Amino acid sequence: MKGYFDDENKEYIIEDMKPRRPWLNYLWNEKAVCSSDQFGHGFFWRAIGTQRRNIEKGVRNVYIKDKSTGEVYSPNRNYGDLPFKVYETHVGINYQKIISEYKGVETVFTICVPKDDAVALYNVKITNKNRDNRLIDGYFCIEPTPALSWHDAYGYADNDEKLNGLLYCHDGFALPNDYTKVFVGCDKKYSAYDLSHSDFRGEYYEYDNPKGIKNDKLSCKGATFEPEYVAAFQFSDIFSESDTFESTFCSFAARNFEEVEKLRKKHLEDTTFEAELKRVSAENASEYEVFTLNSPDKYLNSQTNIWLKRQTSLGKTWGRLYGKGFRDVMQDITAFVSMDTELAKKQILHALKYQYEDGNPIRMFEPSFKFPYNDGGVWIAGAVLSYLNESGDLSILSEKVPYLKGDSYENSNYSDAFVTEPYVTGGKVGTVLEHILAATDYLLGSRGKRNLVLWRGGDWNDSMNSVGRKNKGESVWLSIATVKAVGELIEILKISGNDGLIIGYEKRKDELISAVKLHGFKGGRYIYGYNDEDEIIGGEERTFLNPQTWSVLAGIGSEKERLEIMDEVEKNLKCDYGYVQCRPSFTRGDDNIGRASYFQPGLVENGAVYNHGVAFKIAADCMLGKADSAYKTLKMISYDNPSNPDNGVEPYAVSNMYMGPENKYIAGYAPMSWVTGTAGWLYRCVTEYMCGVKPTFDGLEVSPCLPKEWDGVTARRVYRGEIYEIRYEKSDEKELICDGKKVEKLPLTGKGDVHKVLCKF
Amino acid sequence: MKGYFDDENKEYIIEDMKPRRPWLNYLWNEKAVCSSDQFGHGFFWRAIGTQRRNIEKGVRNVYIKDKSTGEVYSPNRNYGDLPFKVYETHVGINYQKIISEYKGVETVFTICVPKDDAVALYNVKITNKNRDNRLIDGYFCIEPTPALSWHDAYGYADNDEKLNGLLYCHDGFALPNDYTKVFVGCDKKYSAYDLSHSDFRGEYYEYDNPKGIKNDKLSCKGATFEPEYVAAFQFSDIFSESDTFESTFCSFAARNFEEVEKLRKKHLEDTTFEAELKRVSAENASEYEVFTLNSPDKYLNSQTNIWLKRQTSLGKTWGRLYGKGFRDVMQDITAFVSMDTELAKKQILHALKYQYEDGNPIRMFEPSFKFPYNDGGVWIAGAVLSYLNESGDLSILSEKVPYLKGDSYENSNYSDAFVTEPYVTGGKVGTVLEHILAATDYLLGSRGKRNLVLWRGGDWNDSMNSVGRKNKGESVWLSIATVKAVGELIEILKISGNDGLIIGYEKRKDELISAVKLHGFKGGRYIYGYNDEDEIIGGEERTFLNPQTWSVLAGIGSEKERLEIMDEVEKNLKCDYGYVQCRPSFTRGDDNIGRASYFQPGLVENGAVYNHGVAFKIAADCMLGKADSAYKTLKMISYDNPSNPDNGVEPYAVSNMYMGPENKYIAGYAPMSWVTGTAGWLYRCVTEYMCGVKPTFDGLEVSPCLPKEWDGVTARRVYRGEIYEIRYEKSDEKELICDGKKVEKLPLTGKGDVHKVLCKF
Repeated sequence: MKGYFDDENKEYIIEDMKPRRPWLNYLWNEKAVCSSDQFGHGFFWRAIGTQRRNIEKGVRNVYIKDKSTGEVYSPNRNYGDLPFKVYETHVGINYQKIISEYKGVETVFTICVPKDDAVALYNVKITNKNRDNRLIDGYFCIEPTPALSWHDAYGYADNDEKLNGLLYCHDGFALPNDYTKVFVGCDKKYSAYDLSHSDFRGEYYEYDNPKGIKNDKLSCKGATFEPEYVAAFQFSDIFSESDTFESTFCSFAARNFEEVEKLRKKHLEDTTFEAELKRVSAENASEYEVFTLNSPDKYLNSQTNIWLKRQTSLGKTWGRLYGKGFRDVMQDITAFVSMDTELAKKQILHALKYQYEDGNPIRMFEPSFKFPYNDGGVWIAGAVLSYLNESGDLSILSEKVPYLKGDSYENSNYSDAFVTEPYVTGGKVGTVLEHILAATDYLLGSRGKRNLVLWRGGDWNDSMNSVGRKNKGESVWLSIATVKAVGELIEILKISGNDGLIIGYEKRKDELISAVKLHGFKGGRYIYGYNDEDEIIGGEERTFLNPQTWSVLAGIGSEKERLEIMDEVEKNLKCDYGYVQCRPSFTRGDDNIGRASYFQPGLVENGAVYNHGVAFKIAADCMLGKADSAYKTLKMISYDNPSNPDNGVEPYAVSNMYMGPENKYIAGYAPMSWVTGTAGWLYRCVTEYMCGVKPTFDGLEVSPCLPKEWDGVTARRVYRGEIYEIRYEKSDEKELICDGKKVEKLPLTGKGDVHKVLCKF
Repeated sequence: MKGYFDDENKEYIIEDMKPRRPWLNYLWNEKAVCSSDQFGHGFFWRAIGTQRRNIEKGVRNVYIKDKSTGEVYSPNRNYGDLPFKVYETHVGINYQKIISEYKGVETVFTICVPKDDAVALYNVKITNKNRDNRLIDGYFCIEPTPALSWHDAYGYADNDEKLNGLLYCHDGFALPNDYTKVFVGCDKKYSAYDLSHSDFRGEYYEYDNPKGIKNDKLSCKGATFEPEYVAAFQFSDIFSESDTFESTFCSFAARNFEEVEKLRKKHLEDTTFEAELKRVSAENASEYEVFTLNSPDKYLNSQTNIWLKRQTSLGKTWGRLYGKGFRDVMQDITAFVSMDTELAKKQILHALKYQYEDGNPIRMFEPSFKFPYNDGGVWIAGAVLSYLNESGDLSILSEKVPYLKGDSYENSNYSDAFVTEPYVTGGKVGTVLEHILAATDYLLGSRGKRNLVLWRGGDWNDSMNSVGRKNKGESVWLSIATVKAVGELIEILKISGNDGLIIGYEKRKDELISAVKLHGFKGGRYIYGYNDEDEIIGGEERTFLNPQTWSVLAGIGSEKERLEIMDEVEKNLKCDYGYVQCRPSFTRGDDNIGRASYFQPGLVENGAVYNHGVAFKIAADCMLGKADSAYKTLKMISYDNPSNPDNGVEPYAVSNMYMGPENKYIAGYAPMSWVTGTAGWLYRCVTEYMCGVKPTFDGLEVSPCLPKEWDGVTARRVYRGEIYEIRYEKSDEKELICDGKKVEKLPLTGKGDVHKVLCKF
């Protein structure tokens, strides 16, 4: 796990190029997403409405052929494990740079997605440090995915001499969209090219040993009737005129030749790669400045100041097209609202369109998925409240948004698959406040015989998907989450001057709390719920994490009771690298429970250290003042926890889980990173809960919960245009001093002032 | 294109191991299908109801590691193009055998699918010809595909010491079937194993250079949470006790551990691989004996006597699960009825269940596809008639078969995709004769304003899928095919004594012929039809092959007119390697035509040499006595046509097309073999049309159309239990002499006699 953070350049440098699993970076803008592993390999797609249009996938390789020795190698991929003198990858903000040196030839391969267009840019710079005029051919290839259907006969690929690039067309009958041309262009004349993988790789060879490169020249042949093509360029004798060769390539999908020409010109002629790289690596600088931590924990500083923000930002822009959905987008909003307040508003207004008239939102949109989960409504009030607190802008509450038509259950189905039929829009219209009320009323109105909230298709735990299908099962966690959501609604009603409604919700909240206490609390901890068959889920046989931590987040029970609950968590759910989602894991599939019970022990929702849940636990710790426990937990799920070495995760990204200790084969392994709400929650854990810098409607609160061992902590927060430079000081008395004055909350002057804050805690 | 036929062993031996594209063989029984290329790589699946359950795919490799030199290679795949002394593949009937020798070590890798179970068997025999006790480790690996869902957390893989094999489990919630265990077993103790591809291949390596083999021992680790696994076995020091190492492996899917144990025992203990191999290579010997050709064309003899039968046999058993459908199954039946008359009956009765109450059958079943093609009905009468003529069994006509419920158009949709909703069974019940009548009445009743048959979703040409959606377009080809079908119905009515119905159909047939002549014949040839917009398809601008050839098959027009039509075919559609489906190809997509117009010129239905259509042309030639033209055409589409070298096709299989000369990039290339109705039609062309041995209800007719240049042709036909040994003799007078007597048809004695037949022609 060799590598290091370079915070000044917002980079992580990968030095061990073959970690347990590929280490990913994501590059994107509002239109497109490109992934890149440490070699530069990955996919690239653009969104068209609610679809993705794939543009490329897989391999992106530079090759070098030394014609005097015949040696061929890929300087970014190094298939043969050749003894490179330099071999490292710079993971950047919206770019990825792979640098290598072998036998005196240095190659820098850089990928970036420019600010405005659904274009991927590739820059290849090869330098002959030997200055010996050696005969070297350079090659570059990527794998375009031009097909828009399974009819290979629609497609062809050919060289376009005028545009100096390779063009892939797939015009056909009744295609899903009209982006039928994929273009891979270049800003230098190439001496040869390949388009068919059977020409370049060869029918019987792979990218480690492409047949085409063995010939003097690539085939320069067009291709057709292939499901997949290649874009391969050859540059002959690259050092014949200079010791440095440089070329930039672009790749994109377009609707017609005019668009191809325009985009090509814009990105290969009108600007330089260097300029674009500067632009994108400085992108959204203000997002990174909104909160700066300076603590004794250098890694936590890097995480908080750069990488958690970066990861949250992916969800911010692309959550809706990532197989994520309503629940995820709402949580992401709560996390990124300080970084991009306008977008938070926009996303709230967008997501609320996916709430049925009965008040229940859908689980997932774009692509649509109609499995009737029941927890969507609990995330709305919190997201809107976070927007109000960050912005101070009440106008969002009266914005009008249409509902989806009808009843969420009539419109659902229990198929575990994406559906092609779209949601039925055009329901009645309601203000955002009415949407929140509708969601809350839906939850409070969907109750079982114990007065707990019905489980139906499931709740946060996607894989408890067969506990409530018969409309009988009740979820204790969902009831607790509803208590929390009602609390957030009441807060919204307060700050928006709708006091008349409060008393009713207070009463219903209290009733629900009573039900939770009466039916949800067994043997000193909360159960998960009751399924359709009246079986207790998460009773004596098994403890679940979320009902415990959320009882604290929702403020249920006395402080003593909450502390006792967290002791149960420590006792029952802790492992060397975090807290498992449940313990023991299910070991036998149960059709009255669903997917979770069939998962292998320790995997995913069945006993993994689900980091999302661990973040809830850290927040709960902080709410109880357990600073050391919170910080210790944070470090347990760090990539560099010495008790869980070689877990596979990127140091600069958070994974959604570590496989639990009950798994026989891959305990501790963290297979999936980037696409998880954990990043946003951890960011909130550090900033709002540990540093305690919490926006309220009329200003920032500062109520820290910092680890004992820390000294000399400072933080900087930009809030409603003002800057707060906070110094934390351990003290016997708690005091908040802003610009020399003792305050309850940090004052707003409305002048964009820089405030010096001292927080004694 | 090096290789040769070994008819005695029913083998083709591939000597050039890297042809333009992989050369496939198929191995199957009633339950499962396994594909294998020249290296032994391919898929394996079993059918479960209307689904396929994948068992493995991709790589099957033997590896040898010489521990003294460290050299590792794969004797069946030879990734590094090492200078093997022997390297060839024996393509057999239900087996595939790859033989190689390198540095004195001979490896024979044999694959077979046994007769009765959905099991693949692999035998590896390695012989040290050096007899020098060298230290060699042997490895064998395949790629099981145990997943039944995208939930990787359901799966795990582990060694089962007791069963001496590797077990892959994927039990989960709401899975599509209960074959949740995949087992790969071995009859020899192995010294080590791998299950995870990251252990065996390694995260960053491929099968040409697997990381696991570099270690002394494979990892012996279980695996979980992987979408794909490997089954890799290591045998240490294989020559320590003997100069020959041999081991057999089995691979299958099962419902439970008992089934695993039972199948393993049956195939690895109770029998030997050698015995199974003998059994399957002799399989269905009677099918191969039903017709034997002995002509001067050795390749045609191999084709007719072995390989066309073999290829037809794949469709015979698996047509319904191959993305084929009603039309294909009916044509396959007509071709294989002599080889397996009982199965022909069974398949007719099965397929007719997929005919709607309105008389129109569906296009495709298992998996279902609801695009409303309109040609299904024209294939029924011919298939049933061929069964009657082969078997003499009229009872099939009164067998009762249910229809699909309702109207075919109400139940259709124009989505170009497989659908998950099943067809609605439980319609009314009708006899087979009623089904034929319903199909015919449907066609005769679905007429447009020109009295031609409506095109609707399309006809034989799947890609003319937007000519008739508005229920206006009319197909001339479909009208001609209906004429032919009505003729076949009349023949059925005759032989079944339903004469009363004949006159009405004769009349309606004549009416339809008039409409065809009036509206279908323009400028000396037949057009294809009129689309919904009243545009002529296949008029002056473009000639289509099938309407011409089928006018001959249907007997429309005088003989002179038919000869003229075939002259048009020669003039307009011929190329060096056959006859194109249409010429010129479409060069511009047209939404009033559909898919075909968007295909690249020369590809598939847009101007390829579609061999199915070429077979119709050969039959039409024969019907007009054009023997030399028929034979020449047959040779044009032969794999070894010198005018179309390196077309890619297996010598032992027929492809469904050669890309047409109008394609810029891959003219002449034959990408797809095995899964085409062409094999059955070519078989009929040789046996029924060229050799002229045609079953009728009361005996065999012999009316040959053999090429002038041929001498000394004999053929042997088994028919209704009797054997006819036919000698052809050119003569000025036509005479058929059986057992010394001049006859019209070959007589049936009912005693299983061997008849000597002389056919003067």
